[in-house]
Amino acid sequence: MIHEKFPSKLLENAVDEFAKLPGIGRKTALRLVLHLLRCDESDVELFGQSIIQLKKEVKHCNVCYNISDTETCSICSNPSRNNSIICVVETIRDVLSIENTQQFNGQYHVLGGIISPMDGVGPNELEINSLIKRVETNDVVEIILALSTTMEGDTTNFFIYKKLKEHEVKITTIARGVSIGGELEYTDELTLGRSILNRLNYSDILNH
Amino acid sequence: MIHEKFPSKLLENAVDEFAKLPGIGRKTALRLVLHLLRCDESDVELFGQSIIQLKKEVKHCNVCYNISDTETCSICSNPSRNNSIICVVETIRDVLSIENTQQFNGQYHVLGGIISPMDGVGPNELEINSLIKRVETNDVVEIILALSTTMEGDTTNFFIYKKLKEHEVKITTIARGVSIGGELEYTDELTLGRSILNRLNYSDILNH
Repeated sequence: MIHEKFPSKLLENAVDEFAKLPGIGRKTALRLVLHLLRCDESDVELFGQSIIQLKKEVKHCNVCYNISDTETCSICSNPSRNNSIICVVETIRDVLSIENTQQFNGQYHVLGGIISPMDGVGPNELEINSLIKRVETNDVVEIILALSTTMEGDTTNFFIYKKLKEHEVKITTIARGVSIGGELEYTDELTLGRSILNRLNYSDILNH
Repeated sequence: MIHEKFPSKLLENAVDEFAKLPGIGRKTALRLVLHLLRCDESDVELFGQSIIQLKKEVKHCNVCYNISDTETCSICSNPSRNNSIICVVETIRDVLSIENTQQFNGQYHVLGGIISPMDGVGPNELEINSLIKRVETNDVVEIILALSTTMEGDTTNFFIYKKLKEHEVKITTIARGVSIGGELEYTDELTLGRSILNRLNYSDILNH
């Protein structure tokens, strides 16, 4: 760990704050702060205020718990989206990733994490009850589980499955397999094994 | 380039601001912003204010042009430092690097860059005149040039040398050579060549 004797408390303070960010060490923090010091004061003000304002004013959608500027987010309030299919994800980043594919026109439900007793995250810390209520009070036909393929993800999948199995709703999970453009030789055994077990009818693919 | 359709203008705004920082792409920017969103509001306020306050209140030392909270920086105003030796560097980061070695007890002069016509940086954009004045008005015995070993660095070294050669001051540059712990086989030819040309008397080393 580098411990520079900074010539300025203000500089040291700003570097300390940047170094708290994940993946930013003190060297990078110093580089970023010195960059901002070279910018115009108005730009630095914009930078600092953007994050303060975000934290103060951002809301969580009261339907899907995605980040939103309004009470109900733009996806949930979009009438052209299919509200009978809900894709369950961990975080807002997953929403963005799936939106980027442009292959999904349903709605989302952001859990805010997955069940992980090691990290002290139980079902009550997540937006699972609100998901169940959403299924109960709305005309939901299908729930797509799109969580991590880890033990925690599997646990969460199973927990949601148990809670919902008495309801008349189809529960699916996203497909796992060899990535497109990927070579078999370089695919890990678990994924390759899963892709053989979950093999698809070639004629089904042709119809896509 | 990824172009997510962000569910929140505030979020997009904050990500845009972070993505302006050098070496921070939009994916990293989003990760950092989402991290800050999970922090307490007071911590985010501290983060944003630290950089705004730094930009507003930081000064440049009126002697060496290093960053400082006071009119004269802590190095220049330290009576136990030798003010007859001035080490000329490009940026404040160089000051921190040299201070970290704990091998130098003189003072500094921060040019703010090096002469680089390609980037529109001439001698007048740098703190060269103030350096000359410092030599003229103070009892300076030695100027150590510690600039980059690039064409621009060499140009700046030569410019300063010409300006100072009529004054009674010794002008030195820091030694370039094979790094300590470095193997000859992996040292670039230029550095190795320079280290042979500037070879030292072994007995001088023994006396260090």
